[in-house]
Amino acid sequence: MANFPKRIEIKEEGPREGFQIEKNPIPTNRKIEFIDALSETGLKTIQTVSFVNPKVVPNMADAEDVVAGFTPKTGVTYTGLYLNDQGMARAMATKKLTLKGSISLCASEAFLKRNQNRTLEQQEAAQHESIERLKKNGIKIESGGISAAFGCNFEGDVKLDRIMALSKTIFDIAEQHDVKLKHLALMDTMAWATPDRIKRYVGALQDKYPEVEIGLHLHDTRGMGIANAYAGLEMGVAHYDSCVAGLGGCPFAGHAGAAGNVCTEDLVFMAHEMGIETGLDLDRLIECAKMAEDIVGHPLGGSVMTGGSLQKMRERIGASA
Amino acid sequence: MANFPKRIEIKEEGPREGFQIEKNPIPTNRKIEFIDALSETGLKTIQTVSFVNPKVVPNMADAEDVVAGFTPKTGVTYTGLYLNDQGMARAMATKKLTLKGSISLCASEAFLKRNQNRTLEQQEAAQHESIERLKKNGIKIESGGISAAFGCNFEGDVKLDRIMALSKTIFDIAEQHDVKLKHLALMDTMAWATPDRIKRYVGALQDKYPEVEIGLHLHDTRGMGIANAYAGLEMGVAHYDSCVAGLGGCPFAGHAGAAGNVCTEDLVFMAHEMGIETGLDLDRLIECAKMAEDIVGHPLGGSVMTGGSLQKMRERIGASA
Repeated sequence: MANFPKRIEIKEEGPREGFQIEKNPIPTNRKIEFIDALSETGLKTIQTVSFVNPKVVPNMADAEDVVAGFTPKTGVTYTGLYLNDQGMARAMATKKLTLKGSISLCASEAFLKRNQNRTLEQQEAAQHESIERLKKNGIKIESGGISAAFGCNFEGDVKLDRIMALSKTIFDIAEQHDVKLKHLALMDTMAWATPDRIKRYVGALQDKYPEVEIGLHLHDTRGMGIANAYAGLEMGVAHYDSCVAGLGGCPFAGHAGAAGNVCTEDLVFMAHEMGIETGLDLDRLIECAKMAEDIVGHPLGGSVMTGGSLQKMRERIGASA
Repeated sequence: MANFPKRIEIKEEGPREGFQIEKNPIPTNRKIEFIDALSETGLKTIQTVSFVNPKVVPNMADAEDVVAGFTPKTGVTYTGLYLNDQGMARAMATKKLTLKGSISLCASEAFLKRNQNRTLEQQEAAQHESIERLKKNGIKIESGGISAAFGCNFEGDVKLDRIMALSKTIFDIAEQHDVKLKHLALMDTMAWATPDRIKRYVGALQDKYPEVEIGLHLHDTRGMGIANAYAGLEMGVAHYDSCVAGLGGCPFAGHAGAAGNVCTEDLVFMAHEMGIETGLDLDRLIECAKMAEDIVGHPLGGSVMTGGSLQKMRERIGASA
């Protein structure tokens, strides 16, 4: 029936997604403390900061200081988000982050306008330029990504046809530049996905590109995050972005209730209970989630951080799984 | 692939599950106001109160006054929970509730001891007595139920074998009393279920009892509520208990983070987005969820009440579904 993966890879985006949306300034040292704690959980990839306009995202103005401050752990890849040349230059200048290139398109022009002040045509053109620049700088390009992949708060639902057309464009661009993409991520930037749609869109992409690994970036604005991740697991999806404690949201979504990425420790809990490996220490993730709540100073959306893991409970009562 | 039902029936348990767990007293008039608002959402069944020991559950001490106070709406069935004879007598005395009998067993003796101060053997014996009493009082018995069906905070995981044995006992008891059960509910009382297990247990019961409709009563303590409901939908399960705003929990679970039933409006949102009918007005449910938060005086776990429905957003931006 379901085609569960044996193991999933989780990319933690809490430090970037979580802190960029906070209105109150988060002290640099606490961001560093959080990244250092995440480094001890078994995570292989942590997105630490974004290099964006500090006037638009004030809580990322200290991106360079945060990167300078954390203690890298062997085996962990630290990344940073950038949306343009200037951001890429800043990220490279830190000499501490692993830069990864991607070919990224957005399924909604209205959102793209707000987020990056570009048209779809301009975004497509920018990919060609960006690839050449990434190559010149020796940065690997292995991923494609489609943001607003299921719907947009300014344009409405995104149909499967559109996703198939955009993914074709992404692979065409890659081919023109002799780039081989291993991954394609569907980003539910504004939380329009439901699990049935996740399965339909992922399935169509898997059929068309069987050699490509699909990834999911999910938001929990309407409570569908974990159900959407489960739908991904049923389709064999092994790559997920998530945020400890359900930190995050999108400052460009134009929507007060937009906060909340799918929660790392809830996803890890589900995976472990289903016998799917993550390589992560759930108890340490829960500690990080509590630290995140302390740092932002308000309750966050994670559930297992409050409800507790079942493994802990089994140990307490002396029951086996 | 999935065997989604065309329509689901939701039994709202917010007024009972939600208010019974609150430490601060909830004024009777606000409970009544809440039930009256729920009556306008299209819900066909609303569980209004429980008739339990007021020393153990102080917020249900006014059960009779709450029932006396609400305005019944034609087409809505109002129910009350009782766990013993005394409770049943109180429920009957209101002359305003629809009493429904069920044959109920618990998968965990330790939980049963705490919850009802009975052994499993005593509970089974009590079912025989209760059926005769229900019959004498003209109360229909159409449902069976298994609580702690996936695991227990005091005993650990509940294996499928145990559920199959308990369901056999339930149907045997029914047969001995010439009772035909139409429904069998699995209650994840302490939130041990994950979606894969939901599918496995439900599937096994459907195979063995194809003529019986399975129902799910889900808690969201570990963030699995909606994913578990989705798993139910994939198995064709058409009967769900839920609570507006994710109200609720279990006062006997011995666990501070135990609050939170699966959230009615989040479930309805998912169903509608998937093209599954509920007969419910999502906007009115969201209004009830906000009212519930106001009544309990602290944030509740629902997501769509904050994130907003997509249908509303489509209307605002003039997009079609």
